[in-house]
Amino acid sequence: MKTTILIHCPDQPGIVHAVTGFIQEKGGNVVYLDQHVDQEADVFFMRLESDFDSQEYELEQFRKSFEKEIASPYAMKWQVYQNGDKPRMAIFVSKYNHCLYDLLSRYHAGELQVTIPFILSNHAALAPIAEQFNIPFHHVPVTKETKAKAEEKQLRLLRDQKVDFIVLARYMQIVSSTLIGNYLNKIINIHHSFLPAFAGAKPYHAAFERGVKIIGATSHYVTKELDAGPIIEQDVTTVSHSHSISDFIAKGRDLEKIVLSRAVRLHVQRKTIVYNNKTVIFS
Amino acid sequence: MKTTILIHCPDQPGIVHAVTGFIQEKGGNVVYLDQHVDQEADVFFMRLESDFDSQEYELEQFRKSFEKEIASPYAMKWQVYQNGDKPRMAIFVSKYNHCLYDLLSRYHAGELQVTIPFILSNHAALAPIAEQFNIPFHHVPVTKETKAKAEEKQLRLLRDQKVDFIVLARYMQIVSSTLIGNYLNKIINIHHSFLPAFAGAKPYHAAFERGVKIIGATSHYVTKELDAGPIIEQDVTTVSHSHSISDFIAKGRDLEKIVLSRAVRLHVQRKTIVYNNKTVIFS
Amino acid sequence: MKTTILIHCPDQPGIVHAVTGFIQEKGGNVVYLDQHVDQEADVFFMRLESDFDSQEYELEQFRKSFEKEIASPYAMKWQVYQNGDKPRMAIFVSKYNHCLYDLLSRYHAGELQVTIPFILSNHAALAPIAEQFNIPFHHVPVTKETKAKAEEKQLRLLRDQKVDFIVLARYMQIVSSTLIGNYLNKIINIHHSFLPAFAGAKPYHAAFERGVKIIGATSHYVTKELDAGPIIEQDVTTVSHSHSISDFIAKGRDLEKIVLSRAVRLHVQRKTIVYNNKTVIFS
Amino acid sequence: MKTTILIHCPDQPGIVHAVTGFIQEKGGNVVYLDQHVDQEADVFFMRLESDFDSQEYELEQFRKSFEKEIASPYAMKWQVYQNGDKPRMAIFVSKYNHCLYDLLSRYHAGELQVTIPFILSNHAALAPIAEQFNIPFHHVPVTKETKAKAEEKQLRLLRDQKVDFIVLARYMQIVSSTLIGNYLNKIINIHHSFLPAFAGAKPYHAAFERGVKIIGATSHYVTKELDAGPIIEQDVTTVSHSHSISDFIAKGRDLEKIVLSRAVRLHVQRKTIVYNNKTVIFS
Repeated sequence: MKTTILIHCPDQPGIVHAVTGFIQEKGGNVVYLDQHVDQEADVFFMRLESDFDSQEYELEQFRKSFEKEIASPYAMKWQVYQNGDKPRMAIFVSKYNHCLYDLLSRYHAGELQVTIPFILSNHAALAPIAEQFNIPFHHVPVTKETKAKAEEKQLRLLRDQKVDFIVLARYMQIVSSTLIGNYLNKIINIHHSFLPAFAGAKPYHAAFERGVKIIGATSHYVTKELDAGPIIEQDVTTVSHSHSISDFIAKGRDLEKIVLSRAVRLHVQRKTIVYNNKTVIFS
Repeated sequence: MKTTILIHCPDQPGIVHAVTGFIQEKGGNVVYLDQHVDQEADVFFMRLESDFDSQEYELEQFRKSFEKEIASPYAMKWQVYQNGDKPRMAIFVSKYNHCLYDLLSRYHAGELQVTIPFILSNHAALAPIAEQFNIPFHHVPVTKETKAKAEEKQLRLLRDQKVDFIVLARYMQIVSSTLIGNYLNKIINIHHSFLPAFAGAKPYHAAFERGVKIIGATSHYVTKELDAGPIIEQDVTTVSHSHSISDFIAKGRDLEKIVLSRAVRLHVQRKTIVYNNKTVIFS
Repeated sequence: MKTTILIHCPDQPGIVHAVTGFIQEKGGNVVYLDQHVDQEADVFFMRLESDFDSQEYELEQFRKSFEKEIASPYAMKWQVYQNGDKPRMAIFVSKYNHCLYDLLSRYHAGELQVTIPFILSNHAALAPIAEQFNIPFHHVPVTKETKAKAEEKQLRLLRDQKVDFIVLARYMQIVSSTLIGNYLNKIINIHHSFLPAFAGAKPYHAAFERGVKIIGATSHYVTKELDAGPIIEQDVTTVSHSHSISDFIAKGRDLEKIVLSRAVRLHVQRKTIVYNNKTVIFS
Repeated sequence: MKTTILIHCPDQPGIVHAVTGFIQEKGGNVVYLDQHVDQEADVFFMRLESDFDSQEYELEQFRKSFEKEIASPYAMKWQVYQNGDKPRMAIFVSKYNHCLYDLLSRYHAGELQVTIPFILSNHAALAPIAEQFNIPFHHVPVTKETKAKAEEKQLRLLRDQKVDFIVLARYMQIVSSTLIGNYLNKIINIHHSFLPAFAGAKPYHAAFERGVKIIGATSHYVTKELDAGPIIEQDVTTVSHSHSISDFIAKGRDLEKIVLSRAVRLHVQRKTIVYNNKTVIFS
């Protein structure tokens, strides 16, 4: 039995020693440990993978003991995951298909250890791709009038399908604050610029207008403030005066899909902790 | 005799043919030609290098004929340079030495085909480096009270020394609008962020605060609007949660000096044309 | 009517002037011109896009006149293409699906202006993906005994389907020299290393063994010497001691598909000329 | 008192716990811990920085206790350094000055926490730069006849000056095996290619000949096999058909100096461990 533990707490001496001691005592062997202290905030972060003798290890029991003996005395926020568990990932899209294709082909190829209960869209355009990959597709149109109802339907679908996290794969709608509240640090968006440059709509047009020599893409957790959530992953590519806006868009597509997939993989592998609207990314 | 011609004008059929015909007629051979049409603005850009039989070629005569026969009919803005002419480059600095060292060591190694009549600073701190490289150093302090006088002194030095262009190698002062007016598209600044993200002061602090995964540096021509001039060159490097602000600054130094040097080289090689607050960069 | 002309020939004065004059005379307007002289080899390269009044322009007539009046006197090798013509692209695969998915989803999204008459594989594994995208799939197994027959079948399919060029999207077989001869500079391969480092089999294992800090992918035209053909496109990504071979492979997959797609796009857009086992890539 | 400990040993359960327990017991607080297990070789690597109450901590005593109580039972190879100690770094050069300038200007700016007892060269060309920076310069010419004597002189200088490690900043000579033996994993070289591509002489020429689209630089520890030692750092930059060999060389210079400086900094900060001809680099 392999487990992954994510921890953060106020920094103080002895945390690593205490946690590794606890694991050892419970019959576990630490196979990976990455630790970080944010010196400004004085906060300690750690990610541990451990191997347990599966005969003796029982998750619920472990959870209780760890909470009592370690987490509580050190005032930790923590989670434990069993490696191999597949989180349930919903995908929201609009009309652009490149990110969707990239996620689904990775999923299909076994690169992404998730279950995909459904794809949801405010348009019907990408239904054939869902069908191609044999994944349920829900068309939930969003207009000013239907917004509240649409949101309700989204929430019901997410709840019914026990969705663990949501990927906005170029979903061109603002997500409701109820949804964000329900899935805090569990909604991953891809923004087609190098944030914080060119937040908001039409970033490629804005980048072209400004005459930048590099464009980027940013994947981040969604928070109530638009395009301002904790950044998970960014990447860039060069452009020049010889590129038109449509060249920017074409080059950007390659960035968007790669950056989004990397962010999703980090999330799925439990390699992200959010703190102070920033991420700690374990490598 | 080798010459470089830079041209931009309203686009219309036949420009390349007309220009290459003119060069040929004057005994020149085009050895390099790069051309670009901005389809949005409908503007034609071209950079040509030509070899002339040095016996027959006379720059002033060429200038007049080209103006009359080609430039005027096509409403061109154009310049011609004799390859091998060394532009006179003034360097403005404050207290940071990395960009200055980089420029001077390239200059010393023959990488930069310029003459450096002087280094100017609002502090005395870098005078020893100027001395190390045997270049005149002018300490022109700038305070609220002395600002006007300082500016006058700067302008006089630039004029007396027939300076062609100015490099702000981390010069931590706002340059006066008179100076900008006198050296339009001839003042090259290095800004320590990936513009337009983090314009203004303390960009590394702002980048750290925002939790970006990539930081950058931008070299641009200085215009009246702060950090908003035409971008010549940009580059980036990755950072992570494990980097402190001082790590950002250290990584950024390497970017700044490389990006500034590249921009200076492009300018010196007459590979830049400014149009619509953007640059066309010929490779 | 838009056309693209690709030219290379021994360098001499007046080529640009002659070609642009010819285009103009035939009622065309040059909208893009990129020219390059290889100073070592003394060879001139040019790519031109021109707009013709479609009433008057007739491709075959143009071809004849250009050959006679321009190409022949200057000893040019040249091709002309009508923009909008879709080349016929066959895809060869084995068992890896990431490059195939990437090509097909771009094709589906209208990013690649090609027709795909068929996908061919030595395994049946990827037939479902061909079916997903509604493209004919030919399973042509290759064993020592059936090699000659398999090759015959490949050649027949290519001929029958009037294939213009072939993409080896991780096709794990050596291509026959007859096939290479028939499709010189028209077979695009993706090699999963930064060539010339780690040519041959198992490059990720070799890179891991060597302890490199960067891995790459290379797309090139196939020639008789293995992994030694003209390079079209390369890209790299960083790795560290913390990555296992399977991490290298996973990171490499992202590189491979992006690099291969870029190379295919350059080929389709007629932006490549091969000379001296190298490519000139027009941007 | 801050210390850095570097450890590697056969992997087994409980190492982190044992080491952190020991530090704690001796009055130290772990402020940074990075750990890695090479799963193939089954070797454990760790880097720890700890804060000790300076009253109680005594380095020699610590060394003995750690060796006895921890290192010996776990069969560790380990070193401990007091943070703030400045290693003594000799620089060997030939005629190229860009890496030397870069190292010296960083040293001068306080970026490199080292002492530089001398610069050594087989040519006199760079003596003025040493003088510029006020560092002793030894001209030790190397010819076939004088090779043995030159080597003796080098070894004597290194010993007399208690040199801790050597940087070959484009030193165009093969270093003797005695020197390598005396400074195992303590001689840092910069090779002007993306190793293992283009090992040996004239890598830029070879890269140009092959028509690559990316060139690189590699910094590595020197071993007896030429250009085959453990890689510390690599970086790359793009090139195109439009670049000549001298453009490759110019672009390469920027890479070389940055890559070498990064490697030197990692070494100085005790962030490198060599194992199996590879490096573990702690970030």
